[in-house]
Amino acid sequence: MGRRSAKRHHVPGTSPGTLAFPAEAGAPGRMTVITYSAEAFTERTVASLAEVPFPTPSGQQTWLRIVGHSPAALGALTERFGVHPLVVEDVVNVEQRAKVEEFDRYLFIVLDVLRATADGAMREEQVSLLLFEDLLISVQQGESDLFKLVEERLRTGRGKMRGLAVDYLAYALLDAAVDHFFPTLERVGERVDEIEDELLARPDRRSFERLHETKRDLLRLRRATWPLREAVAKLERSEGGLVREGTHVWLRDVYDHAVQIIDIVETSRETTSELVDLYLSSVSNRMNEIMKVLTIIATIFIPLTFIVGVYGMNFNTQAGPLSMPELNWRWGYPAAWAVMLAVAAAMVWMFRRRRWL
Amino acid sequence: MGRRSAKRHHVPGTSPGTLAFPAEAGAPGRMTVITYSAEAFTERTVASLAEVPFPTPSGQQTWLRIVGHSPAALGALTERFGVHPLVVEDVVNVEQRAKVEEFDRYLFIVLDVLRATADGAMREEQVSLLLFEDLLISVQQGESDLFKLVEERLRTGRGKMRGLAVDYLAYALLDAAVDHFFPTLERVGERVDEIEDELLARPDRRSFERLHETKRDLLRLRRATWPLREAVAKLERSEGGLVREGTHVWLRDVYDHAVQIIDIVETSRETTSELVDLYLSSVSNRMNEIMKVLTIIATIFIPLTFIVGVYGMNFNTQAGPLSMPELNWRWGYPAAWAVMLAVAAAMVWMFRRRRWL
Amino acid sequence: MGRRSAKRHHVPGTSPGTLAFPAEAGAPGRMTVITYSAEAFTERTVASLAEVPFPTPSGQQTWLRIVGHSPAALGALTERFGVHPLVVEDVVNVEQRAKVEEFDRYLFIVLDVLRATADGAMREEQVSLLLFEDLLISVQQGESDLFKLVEERLRTGRGKMRGLAVDYLAYALLDAAVDHFFPTLERVGERVDEIEDELLARPDRRSFERLHETKRDLLRLRRATWPLREAVAKLERSEGGLVREGTHVWLRDVYDHAVQIIDIVETSRETTSELVDLYLSSVSNRMNEIMKVLTIIATIFIPLTFIVGVYGMNFNTQAGPLSMPELNWRWGYPAAWAVMLAVAAAMVWMFRRRRWL
Amino acid sequence: MGRRSAKRHHVPGTSPGTLAFPAEAGAPGRMTVITYSAEAFTERTVASLAEVPFPTPSGQQTWLRIVGHSPAALGALTERFGVHPLVVEDVVNVEQRAKVEEFDRYLFIVLDVLRATADGAMREEQVSLLLFEDLLISVQQGESDLFKLVEERLRTGRGKMRGLAVDYLAYALLDAAVDHFFPTLERVGERVDEIEDELLARPDRRSFERLHETKRDLLRLRRATWPLREAVAKLERSEGGLVREGTHVWLRDVYDHAVQIIDIVETSRETTSELVDLYLSSVSNRMNEIMKVLTIIATIFIPLTFIVGVYGMNFNTQAGPLSMPELNWRWGYPAAWAVMLAVAAAMVWMFRRRRWL
Amino acid sequence: MGRRSAKRHHVPGTSPGTLAFPAEAGAPGRMTVITYSAEAFTERTVASLAEVPFPTPSGQQTWLRIVGHSPAALGALTERFGVHPLVVEDVVNVEQRAKVEEFDRYLFIVLDVLRATADGAMREEQVSLLLFEDLLISVQQGESDLFKLVEERLRTGRGKMRGLAVDYLAYALLDAAVDHFFPTLERVGERVDEIEDELLARPDRRSFERLHETKRDLLRLRRATWPLREAVAKLERSEGGLVREGTHVWLRDVYDHAVQIIDIVETSRETTSELVDLYLSSVSNRMNEIMKVLTIIATIFIPLTFIVGVYGMNFNTQAGPLSMPELNWRWGYPAAWAVMLAVAAAMVWMFRRRRWL
Repeated sequence: MGRRSAKRHHVPGTSPGTLAFPAEAGAPGRMTVITYSAEAFTERTVASLAEVPFPTPSGQQTWLRIVGHSPAALGALTERFGVHPLVVEDVVNVEQRAKVEEFDRYLFIVLDVLRATADGAMREEQVSLLLFEDLLISVQQGESDLFKLVEERLRTGRGKMRGLAVDYLAYALLDAAVDHFFPTLERVGERVDEIEDELLARPDRRSFERLHETKRDLLRLRRATWPLREAVAKLERSEGGLVREGTHVWLRDVYDHAVQIIDIVETSRETTSELVDLYLSSVSNRMNEIMKVLTIIATIFIPLTFIVGVYGMNFNTQAGPLSMPELNWRWGYPAAWAVMLAVAAAMVWMFRRRRWL
Repeated sequence: MGRRSAKRHHVPGTSPGTLAFPAEAGAPGRMTVITYSAEAFTERTVASLAEVPFPTPSGQQTWLRIVGHSPAALGALTERFGVHPLVVEDVVNVEQRAKVEEFDRYLFIVLDVLRATADGAMREEQVSLLLFEDLLISVQQGESDLFKLVEERLRTGRGKMRGLAVDYLAYALLDAAVDHFFPTLERVGERVDEIEDELLARPDRRSFERLHETKRDLLRLRRATWPLREAVAKLERSEGGLVREGTHVWLRDVYDHAVQIIDIVETSRETTSELVDLYLSSVSNRMNEIMKVLTIIATIFIPLTFIVGVYGMNFNTQAGPLSMPELNWRWGYPAAWAVMLAVAAAMVWMFRRRRWL
Repeated sequence: MGRRSAKRHHVPGTSPGTLAFPAEAGAPGRMTVITYSAEAFTERTVASLAEVPFPTPSGQQTWLRIVGHSPAALGALTERFGVHPLVVEDVVNVEQRAKVEEFDRYLFIVLDVLRATADGAMREEQVSLLLFEDLLISVQQGESDLFKLVEERLRTGRGKMRGLAVDYLAYALLDAAVDHFFPTLERVGERVDEIEDELLARPDRRSFERLHETKRDLLRLRRATWPLREAVAKLERSEGGLVREGTHVWLRDVYDHAVQIIDIVETSRETTSELVDLYLSSVSNRMNEIMKVLTIIATIFIPLTFIVGVYGMNFNTQAGPLSMPELNWRWGYPAAWAVMLAVAAAMVWMFRRRRWL
Repeated sequence: MGRRSAKRHHVPGTSPGTLAFPAEAGAPGRMTVITYSAEAFTERTVASLAEVPFPTPSGQQTWLRIVGHSPAALGALTERFGVHPLVVEDVVNVEQRAKVEEFDRYLFIVLDVLRATADGAMREEQVSLLLFEDLLISVQQGESDLFKLVEERLRTGRGKMRGLAVDYLAYALLDAAVDHFFPTLERVGERVDEIEDELLARPDRRSFERLHETKRDLLRLRRATWPLREAVAKLERSEGGLVREGTHVWLRDVYDHAVQIIDIVETSRETTSELVDLYLSSVSNRMNEIMKVLTIIATIFIPLTFIVGVYGMNFNTQAGPLSMPELNWRWGYPAAWAVMLAVAAAMVWMFRRRRWL
Repeated sequence: MGRRSAKRHHVPGTSPGTLAFPAEAGAPGRMTVITYSAEAFTERTVASLAEVPFPTPSGQQTWLRIVGHSPAALGALTERFGVHPLVVEDVVNVEQRAKVEEFDRYLFIVLDVLRATADGAMREEQVSLLLFEDLLISVQQGESDLFKLVEERLRTGRGKMRGLAVDYLAYALLDAAVDHFFPTLERVGERVDEIEDELLARPDRRSFERLHETKRDLLRLRRATWPLREAVAKLERSEGGLVREGTHVWLRDVYDHAVQIIDIVETSRETTSELVDLYLSSVSNRMNEIMKVLTIIATIFIPLTFIVGVYGMNFNTQAGPLSMPELNWRWGYPAAWAVMLAVAAAMVWMFRRRRWL
């Protein structure tokens, strides 16, 4: 919760099914009805749900696309198609966990797709699907290219999509949505590799902050993908008749992709954990190296400074024969230097032998 | 256990069903009976349970609200409604784990709602529900606004609540109770975000202590919400007939909310764990930075201090030609300065080259 | 294993059912037979198992209490009541994991109660129950007040215990045993709170050692309580007829308590883990603070010491115009002080600006 | 994902079953048909799938080996043998998770074998098996010695392989593939042992980086082997008739090997985790040792330097009787040395007594 | 894998059932046939399996002990008793995971017993049992006292072993094998306690290395005991008729022991983890203590050294009235000492007040 992962919630105690439309969702939205069969394909924009033929005429399949959370359109889902008010509430409330719910006459699927944007941030996009007999309703928050390729395949009649019912279309949309995680994961993976290289070359506060961000991204991805897997598994096992026999094998493939995504997310999470260790060890290593060298320099000079201090003492050389006679020796000064060089050399040698240098 | 999470427990070995009323619960409490049907709504305060019509007259629904743990009222639950003594014990003992228990004639639901108070602390509020055929008894520890909106919806007749039986009312109360976790989580989430910002900007002992408190809060939230989820799941699967068919879909929604709450709690917990890492790494980073600079300053001056020490030695320059002749050279003093500046420059250059500065 | 958690084990390969009586268990022990019904209550001490009426006369219930592991008494359990030799072995071998085993004619329950003693240590006390039709045998290691209150309730006839069969008595003993964990947990919880306060106020080696001990205690509690929960759950689900229908709801309550105990233990464990973090962070914080201040003091004085060293050099001021003329300047000495004060002030200012001070 | 663990994925939204041939897979590949029975063995290279007899003539078994991902050959699998397009997609997309899928007429098995190459890196090799009645199709990415020994056993007629059906051959291939993990694990294990020895002898940045690499290798091995185990378990439980009764016991052996592999991987992972602790503790230990010695040297000399500084002060000994009379004492200088030696000895003695040296 | 936990594996791809006899297993081994019934007991050494009566004559029980992996003897198991080649392979390959496999005519049990040797190392000893109707074959790697006591009980006729079938004998062997873990665990536990005492008294590199070794031992114990528990559980649930009804309760006891062993291993593992924390905290504590004292000594002397440096400056006292007049004051030198003592006292006081000393 909080700023970075805000969830809208209505006031506790209000009537369930209360639709909390986001402020920015005032845009009227766009509704398109696509009717297709093996032979035909028509597409038109409608202004209200009343224009959608329901039940779908025999031999045809209908895909109703609702883009934007128009209160009018979504509010009418209950009357027109008998959608449960709680489902409509879930459609409107963005940032749901992915889930699949089975009702008598329809299946409700909600997904949360995380996509890396150009600037490296991640954007969530919620997609709801309502799968009726011969009718599929998809609701998206706003304009997006998420289903662009599927739409084209349907329009151009490539592949076998037109010859099959809307449950196959639902599968194709799901597949597209799930596959959109892969480029995001790839980008995260590249970032992890870059950070690892940086850390091995030269540990850096900046790298660590990038690592921290990446871990947060992976936490979000994980939160999005585990329920996704559960939802797809539930859909694959669904036995209500809305998902036809032949579609299950395709859904199993989506399930495999979901598992693979989780696998990548979890592996990346483990890798980032190890990078934290690597960072900490690198930093402490580097710091130790510096401190060691500096301390050794200081340690070598400290006895030397003591020696020069000794001969800086002002004892009166006249006071007695043992009162600093060195000061008056002919070779006193060179001898002092010799002693100091010998001490320094001995210390360097000792540090070397102990492999401290 | 202990001060911060005290649990009351009776002396081991005493008779089960012994009611341990908290000392401060001496207040007489307040009992209200609300009777409603699709057409009617009456509300009155009663002084004893004997005044509650039971079984509820056909075509009506009764909601008995007990506010405050009045020994007299609660003690009478067993005689008047056949509630098991252990259930009454659970109602009275606050700080139960959330749970649902099924009996022949009623369902017992106990919940523990954690709410952030204005001063940032968290307050627990226990709610018990006893769901009979056409009668719902709710028991709260004290006055609270937890169910205010539900009560209003019932009083004003908005929504469909009046037209449905008390199991729907029980759902509405549960829903309100569960939804009260969201503002609390939001506040915790905001605090986590604030702490993260502080840590990234400038690691601070105070932030760490706030982080520690937040972790304790999340531990409490976790302890409260996992049993909550189990309890709601059990209720949803309940097949005793007390929960009507149509109510299950609403309970599934409450279950989804409980799952979402746990999801947020667990994600926040992971985030706070990473913030601990971030804090430790920031602190050590900052400390290292300081120590490095200081040590470098010391290291540069140590050889210089040695040099000035050398020319502070009192060797008699008359003793021989090698006895500190520098002291009498015309350019001796400037030369000493030149040497010292060269040494300092060389060291700075070396530190720069090794990227220690 | 080892000194602090010693387990007795017989030599591997010896015959199973070999009774390994602890050396100190030589005391003869005490056997009491309590016979009760709704109307009557008699209690007498017996010297051998042969004196115990078995099967219990109709309409009566018998509780045989064996206190102390008397070889004679326990060895006779097999002959007199047909108890399996392995069960007798388990009764004798203290420090069993809690468990419930069902046999044709009896149920075997063994529990391990951990209680905090006055000096803060924890003492284990093993209790075995053998539940037959109308006969309950309880075996305790030694004299203890564990079941004192239950015995009194039975003796005084308070509550409904006398009117029910021995399975209810078994429940009452179990309930008392399980509830004895609560005061122990409370004491541990208080210790955790104290340690937290100490750590927040002033991290201390002693606190850390107390924390370490507390963690060991919690580990022992955990090891004791998880099997306890499993055992109670198995008992609650038991369908052999020895546990009567009405007793299951009471056992469910004991199960709830066991779950609550585990909940507290696990929460305390998490709390202590966070306290370790808090301790380490506090210690390193404090240490850093000290080192920082000391290093800053040193760093400020090092350049000053260099300066005074410079003017301690013995260059002959007569040697030339640049040979330490400062020494003979009228304001030389005050100027040196001025320079030194300026350097010190500049450094303090710099450290302040960087927020190192 | 990312460079080091790149996954190919097609553009999200493209038609499922779209074959994404890797660029380097343009090579035509090689197809060999081996036909065998208890008495006969023939082997020939074919240019297209049309040349493969299907269904296999009675009394014979056919093994079709496809080496290299030839688009032509793989694309024809669907037409010729009725393989589902998604399966063909999985065959072509390398880096699948190991899995087993059951279809009406065939079983699909895909495995990912990780093998250590001579230079210590790990290479992945994907193997797909399609098990029909009397026909086994194996697809490998490229030439490899993975199945060399199995092929030889079949060719030479050693063992009982020729007398059994292709499900036994499939088992033999699986067994060979799984067993190829062992030498890899052995090499990783040796590396772990070497690193441990290095760390115990002398902690080293290089060892830590090797450790980090080893952890990444183990992560990859783990990711490869867990699905492997699941896949083999599913195959063992398979009841479709394609796996004959007698083959299950052999598959159980493969399953045991898979479990053993996971066991080794997990144990190695735990060992490497402990090595990280060992490394960090060794590094900090060594560093502490160095710093301690250096600091002690400095600490001993600091008071001595102070003393020589005292007698370097220029107070005028004529100014009064207490103005540094020591300087003119006959034994002043030796006394100063005596004091300094005494101070140094006292400090060394104190450090010794406190066991700092 | 690797040196310390080497596993033998045959070349991947070789025929399954290939027996990989360890090089050192060339010794011929020893085979003993023990035939017993309630009344009789005979024992003789045989040279080949052909001498073993099979099926066992009615009314008798046969125990065939094979000690040493003699290729001749083990190779003949398949022909003589119909043992599956894979089972023979498992018997020969030491370092199997413990497991139980059920076949039509026999049960195969393989166990891995870890025993602490006198020098503190751990030795693995693999035991295989083949339980037929009235015949038990045990295979051990070499001579060992593992089953000495069981053999004696059988020979002397103590206990009820002779009167029961070989499944009870198999239980007795299992029980002996499992119980051999206890002394090992006890020794490990003692070592953990010793290490804890050392760490609390005085943290030491040597203790840490012992701790590291202990963790490796516990890892091995864990790896050995989890499969052990699974195997015993499977055996207890076995319903093939080879394990008679009355033996199940004895196996449940073995299962309890296995659970207890795991419990001890896991508890010890947690304890050692906490000891690592304790060690690290102790080391850093001790180090901090040393560094703090040393730094404080240095910090106290640095200002004093500065002061004596000041009065070592050679400013000409004749140059002016402010040019170091102190040097010629009558009380200059004592005053300098007074100032220095005051500074030192002030610093000590400050450090005390801040509790740094």
